[in-house]
Amino acid sequence: MITGYFEDLVEGKVLESRGRTVTQADVVGFAGLSGDFHPLHLDVEHAKKARFGEPIAHGMLTLAIASGLIELSPEAVQAFGGMDKVRFLQPVFFGDTIHVRSEVASLEQMDDSCGKAVLAITVLNQRDEPVVVFKMRLVVGTRPRTA
Amino acid sequence: MITGYFEDLVEGKVLESRGRTVTQADVVGFAGLSGDFHPLHLDVEHAKKARFGEPIAHGMLTLAIASGLIELSPEAVQAFGGMDKVRFLQPVFFGDTIHVRSEVASLEQMDDSCGKAVLAITVLNQRDEPVVVFKMRLVVGTRPRTA
Amino acid sequence: MITGYFEDLVEGKVLESRGRTVTQADVVGFAGLSGDFHPLHLDVEHAKKARFGEPIAHGMLTLAIASGLIELSPEAVQAFGGMDKVRFLQPVFFGDTIHVRSEVASLEQMDDSCGKAVLAITVLNQRDEPVVVFKMRLVVGTRPRTA
Amino acid sequence: MITGYFEDLVEGKVLESRGRTVTQADVVGFAGLSGDFHPLHLDVEHAKKARFGEPIAHGMLTLAIASGLIELSPEAVQAFGGMDKVRFLQPVFFGDTIHVRSEVASLEQMDDSCGKAVLAITVLNQRDEPVVVFKMRLVVGTRPRTA
Amino acid sequence: MITGYFEDLVEGKVLESRGRTVTQADVVGFAGLSGDFHPLHLDVEHAKKARFGEPIAHGMLTLAIASGLIELSPEAVQAFGGMDKVRFLQPVFFGDTIHVRSEVASLEQMDDSCGKAVLAITVLNQRDEPVVVFKMRLVVGTRPRTA
Amino acid sequence: MITGYFEDLVEGKVLESRGRTVTQADVVGFAGLSGDFHPLHLDVEHAKKARFGEPIAHGMLTLAIASGLIELSPEAVQAFGGMDKVRFLQPVFFGDTIHVRSEVASLEQMDDSCGKAVLAITVLNQRDEPVVVFKMRLVVGTRPRTA
Repeated sequence: MITGYFEDLVEGKVLESRGRTVTQADVVGFAGLSGDFHPLHLDVEHAKKARFGEPIAHGMLTLAIASGLIELSPEAVQAFGGMDKVRFLQPVFFGDTIHVRSEVASLEQMDDSCGKAVLAITVLNQRDEPVVVFKMRLVVGTRPRTA
Repeated sequence: MITGYFEDLVEGKVLESRGRTVTQADVVGFAGLSGDFHPLHLDVEHAKKARFGEPIAHGMLTLAIASGLIELSPEAVQAFGGMDKVRFLQPVFFGDTIHVRSEVASLEQMDDSCGKAVLAITVLNQRDEPVVVFKMRLVVGTRPRTA
Repeated sequence: MITGYFEDLVEGKVLESRGRTVTQADVVGFAGLSGDFHPLHLDVEHAKKARFGEPIAHGMLTLAIASGLIELSPEAVQAFGGMDKVRFLQPVFFGDTIHVRSEVASLEQMDDSCGKAVLAITVLNQRDEPVVVFKMRLVVGTRPRTA
Repeated sequence: MITGYFEDLVEGKVLESRGRTVTQADVVGFAGLSGDFHPLHLDVEHAKKARFGEPIAHGMLTLAIASGLIELSPEAVQAFGGMDKVRFLQPVFFGDTIHVRSEVASLEQMDDSCGKAVLAITVLNQRDEPVVVFKMRLVVGTRPRTA
Repeated sequence: MITGYFEDLVEGKVLESRGRTVTQADVVGFAGLSGDFHPLHLDVEHAKKARFGEPIAHGMLTLAIASGLIELSPEAVQAFGGMDKVRFLQPVFFGDTIHVRSEVASLEQMDDSCGKAVLAITVLNQRDEPVVVFKMRLVVGTRPRTA
Repeated sequence: MITGYFEDLVEGKVLESRGRTVTQADVVGFAGLSGDFHPLHLDVEHAKKARFGEPIAHGMLTLAIASGLIELSPEAVQAFGGMDKVRFLQPVFFGDTIHVRSEVASLEQMDDSCGKAVLAITVLNQRDEPVVVFKMRLVVGTRPRTA
């Protein structure tokens, strides 16, 4: 998605990613990778009696999948500096399909070789409801000069 | 780690987690789960010529493993509301061992059944250097009254 | 669950673990890890015609998940010496939720630093029916003396 | 399946493998391993509107599972040289159970120690419909002489 | 390995399996599947200071891999009833290659259709040192009569 | 890589993919997914005595990773019809980094909505040596007309 160099980024530009369905296999895999086996995600009997009535995906899994959907350009993006105001707005259930809307929120040239970009990320489900929002801080390189 | 109910939390209290080594297998697994195959993590030849000289773990993987090390009490923690000021300070290399220091930063009673807690999280490597810091927003239940 | 030192263990004491749902993803993952692709677990058409009418989890997978639910204290438990009288009593179907009941069956002090503990483990499903029972042999350390 | 040495192979001989159900967990796992997250496999909403109305397994996953079902003898098979005329004839849906029919198509002695074998492989689903066909080129060793 | 029917089993008969190297990826995968992240297996810094000086495989992982190496015949083996006297004799380090020696320890005909078999299993490393021993209880079918 | 519609493809056009290192974790993961635990890939002791002196990646794993590196456009590529003349030319060792060179070998318009494209694929290692070659048959859509 962020396929261009720093010069190619325009404040206010919005891009949409492809979608991906969050499955039981993803949640089981993420539990194993993170070590977070909280029963809200992994225990169907517990989840039946809890707030949402069925298991939900880990918030961190939604972030992880979103980070893959954003598809940062390997050539241009030099560093992922951090995130601000990450808010989990709605649960993601097994079988929900999420995609990412990203808007270039701000740009700041640092020097000849790179600049700071802040993306306003919204992760949406198949009903276009926002499930997670956050600001993503990137260092993006400028176009290399051909010798 | 956060094993108690809202009444058991004390501002300023600091807890340390067990450690876990971040391995090549974790990075390969996280790439597959997230879909983020950025060559800084997955292409040794690319990484040799990049800033750190060898592949590094995804920042989101470090967050995911940290979320498992924090070991939130299934009984008490009702919701993971979000994160603030997530900053990736240092790279995590394959073979680094991370652990989590969490401090109760603020507490706010919401009603009889629960309250908001903010934890100041520091993820540290085997040399006790901070690699990621963030604020974690939780809703923590109060101790259930026995009937 | 076994969170204390040898001195903290009391014969006859019973503890219950959290639960975890055994999913298709767990069975597929375990087949891949163990290399056991027996059609009772991995071939729906074969399983339809076999004794239980649908695929069941590997017995060894139930043991593996049980070993994680027991949550032995890293500080106190020094070694896992073996198991006795492991009996698979009932099948675990995809979607069943298991938890572990463990009773301290016997204790034997070895020396100043540790002792032998035998736990009588019962793995139960969501209807509280025992699916696996076994005796688990552990070496548990005594509380370290503060200098 | 190919359990014998070169001398044991007979042109026209046909063997059938055990079966294996292709699950959502396999497709999610293969996406992660290959990096191929094409929405025909991973996005339920996209698949609903596409040709088959639901997600299908990657063709390469069907090949991968078929290669495991063929169970080449570690003692006899020395090399997997290649494939010809790989044709994906029908989609494999989540929950389909596939097995492999392999026929010895041709044999050519190379020297005292080995020969070339070509197998005509047909991967079939639970309705015995061919889903993939291909020719598999192997180097198979002759029976070692006992000293 | 146990490829025959009950009539084909002979008390005292010994069989050797192929080998498999136990890797870091297997240990990380097993931790994720079982939820057992004990630092003896997953924390290199902890393991350096512990008894063996480096991380070791979970005992349950060694059992799981052994169960796959035994390769029970899907046609003949009807049930895996349990295990007795499981003893972990030596640690399995990352990179060790294990194989399984199985001896038919006892046979007991149950009825026309099946019998009980007990296998004495020894898991050995690349120096032929036993790392785990156990007795495995199976129900094995008799050869089906052709109509 | 194949990011355009049928009209955008030009015979003889060559594209290079990003790279990816084939790791032990990938080989262990692929063995588990495919069920192919051949000792050339999974048994270090066996591999030491075999032709290459160390374990090598499955040929099918190299194909699988190559299929992900090619990055077919979800919008334009409608079907993956098959492969011809797949030849494994050199082993891929753990730690080798592969990338894909793809050339548009032939194009054939089928109707208004799509055409057949054949890509000549070469998978190369970090020394630019071809490790696998094959022809890939695709159905690629024409650019949708805006209403």
